[in-house]
Amino acid sequence: MLSKTTNADHHLYEQVAHQITGLIEQGTLRAGERIPSVRRYSVQHHVSISTVMQAYALLEDRGVIEARPQSGYYVRHRFRELPPEPAISHPPLAASHVNVGDLVMRIHEALENPDIVPFGAACPSLDLLPSRKLNRTLGAILRRTNYAGVTYQSARGNQTLRHQISRRALDWGYHLAENDIITTFGCTEALNLCLRAVAGPSDAIAVESPVYFGILQIIESLKMKAVEIPTDPKTGICFEALEAAMKKRMVKACLLTPTFQNPLGCCMPEENKKQLLKLIAHHEIPLIEDDIYGDLYHGADRPKPVKAFDKNGLVLLCSSFSKTLSAGYRIGWTAPGRFKTQVERLKLTNTMATAPLLEMAIAEMLSNGGYDHYLRRIRKAYATQVQLTTQAICKYFPAGTKVTRPMGGFLLWVELPKSVNALALYRKALSEKISIAPGPLFSAKQRYPNFIRLSCGHPWSEELARALARLGQLAKEM
Amino acid sequence: MLSKTTNADHHLYEQVAHQITGLIEQGTLRAGERIPSVRRYSVQHHVSISTVMQAYALLEDRGVIEARPQSGYYVRHRFRELPPEPAISHPPLAASHVNVGDLVMRIHEALENPDIVPFGAACPSLDLLPSRKLNRTLGAILRRTNYAGVTYQSARGNQTLRHQISRRALDWGYHLAENDIITTFGCTEALNLCLRAVAGPSDAIAVESPVYFGILQIIESLKMKAVEIPTDPKTGICFEALEAAMKKRMVKACLLTPTFQNPLGCCMPEENKKQLLKLIAHHEIPLIEDDIYGDLYHGADRPKPVKAFDKNGLVLLCSSFSKTLSAGYRIGWTAPGRFKTQVERLKLTNTMATAPLLEMAIAEMLSNGGYDHYLRRIRKAYATQVQLTTQAICKYFPAGTKVTRPMGGFLLWVELPKSVNALALYRKALSEKISIAPGPLFSAKQRYPNFIRLSCGHPWSEELARALARLGQLAKEM
Repeated sequence: MLSKTTNADHHLYEQVAHQITGLIEQGTLRAGERIPSVRRYSVQHHVSISTVMQAYALLEDRGVIEARPQSGYYVRHRFRELPPEPAISHPPLAASHVNVGDLVMRIHEALENPDIVPFGAACPSLDLLPSRKLNRTLGAILRRTNYAGVTYQSARGNQTLRHQISRRALDWGYHLAENDIITTFGCTEALNLCLRAVAGPSDAIAVESPVYFGILQIIESLKMKAVEIPTDPKTGICFEALEAAMKKRMVKACLLTPTFQNPLGCCMPEENKKQLLKLIAHHEIPLIEDDIYGDLYHGADRPKPVKAFDKNGLVLLCSSFSKTLSAGYRIGWTAPGRFKTQVERLKLTNTMATAPLLEMAIAEMLSNGGYDHYLRRIRKAYATQVQLTTQAICKYFPAGTKVTRPMGGFLLWVELPKSVNALALYRKALSEKISIAPGPLFSAKQRYPNFIRLSCGHPWSEELARALARLGQLAKEM
Repeated sequence: MLSKTTNADHHLYEQVAHQITGLIEQGTLRAGERIPSVRRYSVQHHVSISTVMQAYALLEDRGVIEARPQSGYYVRHRFRELPPEPAISHPPLAASHVNVGDLVMRIHEALENPDIVPFGAACPSLDLLPSRKLNRTLGAILRRTNYAGVTYQSARGNQTLRHQISRRALDWGYHLAENDIITTFGCTEALNLCLRAVAGPSDAIAVESPVYFGILQIIESLKMKAVEIPTDPKTGICFEALEAAMKKRMVKACLLTPTFQNPLGCCMPEENKKQLLKLIAHHEIPLIEDDIYGDLYHGADRPKPVKAFDKNGLVLLCSSFSKTLSAGYRIGWTAPGRFKTQVERLKLTNTMATAPLLEMAIAEMLSNGGYDHYLRRIRKAYATQVQLTTQAICKYFPAGTKVTRPMGGFLLWVELPKSVNALALYRKALSEKISIAPGPLFSAKQRYPNFIRLSCGHPWSEELARALARLGQLAKEM
């Protein structure tokens, strides 16, 4: 308990700061963990809010804690020992044809080999996801009704699942009606249908840089072009560059991941999201918003998607349950705003409708609280795995390595010294049964030759630590 | 037992014919049923094969029985009382943009309303399909293994299912390796991916005329064009017209349903299939072969697909289990021949991979004999339903009505007198809760103004009979 002498506020906030530093040094609060909110600390310790705020600001200046937008203050990783973050990307403003197919096929194939250490694909561990629970839920549905999900359904998809998704949207203060939603086979189909609804062959699509190679592949397969926009590893896409592309009428649509982008992990602050919305509304350019990692926040609150502020239906929100419940169930969805009719028709001609049985199982996980329960566990696990992987990189990788500080999801974007060729590293690592995703995959123009993406989707283990040590060794030898 | 006097063969074959006519008149052999094969009759009754052949030829001349290619002889429907078949179609040779979307959406919506008599969509009755058995099979898989089907798999799809499909191909004497097969979300996705692999926007695709509206919609959604080729309701596509289109370099690919075409129900004789293959090989034009109805033959043997004779990989075979096991499971597949790599990549970018759990259930139905067991039942049911519907049309529809004689599947193509407007009939019928598919849907140019397609996917009932009587009445009033 701290002294309550209000006259000595100057000293009091230093006392608060000292106490928190002690908790960290003793290991009560650990690197990457959230410290009590200003309000809570104030109530618990009977100190004024302004005092706590002063104390936290002091600790932030000292590099002991760090503020994360919309989520609070966190203990910094080993104070200042961590590698710095990569700088904002600077791709030239140009539309590119895309071709990353061969490499991606090989990274997917590695998924099927259990002997390969899985830093490559963004695929969560089976042990973390509620796979058994989900399968049991499906089994119970099958026992309840004989004819469940065996016939055709409307292209919009299972009504119960759309209802659950609609209810969850209320949490971020948005009214998404059941009939505004169309279910899909994964986020992949959702992105496909939305792209086809708003653009055609040879049209250019603005994407973040670096960008998830799956997005580049979809753009490539639809014979569209990608315009890579500079993106800050903390705050997301660079407005000036995006606006320049729009002013030049270079882009027909945007396909962005504003919340926990793949591979950067960055989350646009809410103000930036609103600003983005103004920009696309001004130019009447649709935004396909990939929100697949949105529920995997490490902080206290789920960041709102851009869609939450969309008043004129220009945002086509896309997501799925592949990163939170099961990738094998292939259940995703889209809320395509004013493009609903087009997307619904494309769904009908693309795959007719999503598989109702699997939708029913997912809907039940959402309605009975199982989803939220497991989400809490998974979010914590991912935050820890990201932190431990970062510390191992810090320990084993060559001097000069830089790493992102993701605020959600389970991906790290690593900048290696310029001497390291990521493609060569990828091949060497794979020959030693370690899978990574090399940087050039994340650009239509094979930029990022010395970057790699590491997936932290698997629980920390000695095996992972050894693989990272070996990876660092291989990089050092280059 | 017939007299065996071999000297009196002239009289003997008339005796055989007389005996069979008697069996039909007594109702032992009923309209639409197959009569014993020539060989079997010969063995059972100790008569020479040539005598039986003479007898059958006589009965055929008299209109008592009819030969169906590759399947044997059948009792004709009420001898000569049935309406004649529609003539071969004669669409002009031209590539058309396609737009049938609105109407189709409404026909699909009618599916979800159980109060509507379902002659519209080509959707089999739940009571006929082994829905419960399939769901129980899935339940058993879920109990056997906790983690079944919850994670990503390769774009090619579940290996066990591909193995089963490959084994069944042996029945038609073709070696289809597991790795030549890619599973898809229904035949719809298979057709989509194959079209995208062989053609691009504004390319023209040769299709039968009339043609399933779903195929027109897929072509429309991919911004391709359709060239409608005259098609004979008995023997399928007209080679002269198809060759003319190829010689003019009008078409980039063919998308045909050589076995039990939708809506005609016609099956190309095996010789024609081989001739078709020669034609496409000569012009190096890929053939996407929709074989979704192939297993639903009414005769004794499953007709071989064109793919069975494909030596140079120009045929992309597509099918699904939607008409035989469950439409809601959305499990289809393609064997895309030399276009395998392209189709596999498109599968990855379109929906990543098919849902493994549902594939496992289908694979188990194929491997444990359940599929064949149910198929026998379904085939018989469809043949009967088609026959009873034909008889009802004969009874209730206006004079001058013509009807196809499908050799498989469960669809009838009905030509009404020219005075009947099929779209007006569709609207009137729907207002009385009867769903039909109007002819103009089956053409990119809204041909077939006085045709309708009737689905016989539901077991015969008084309700269906009443609905057909009412439909006939509505048509007569026009």
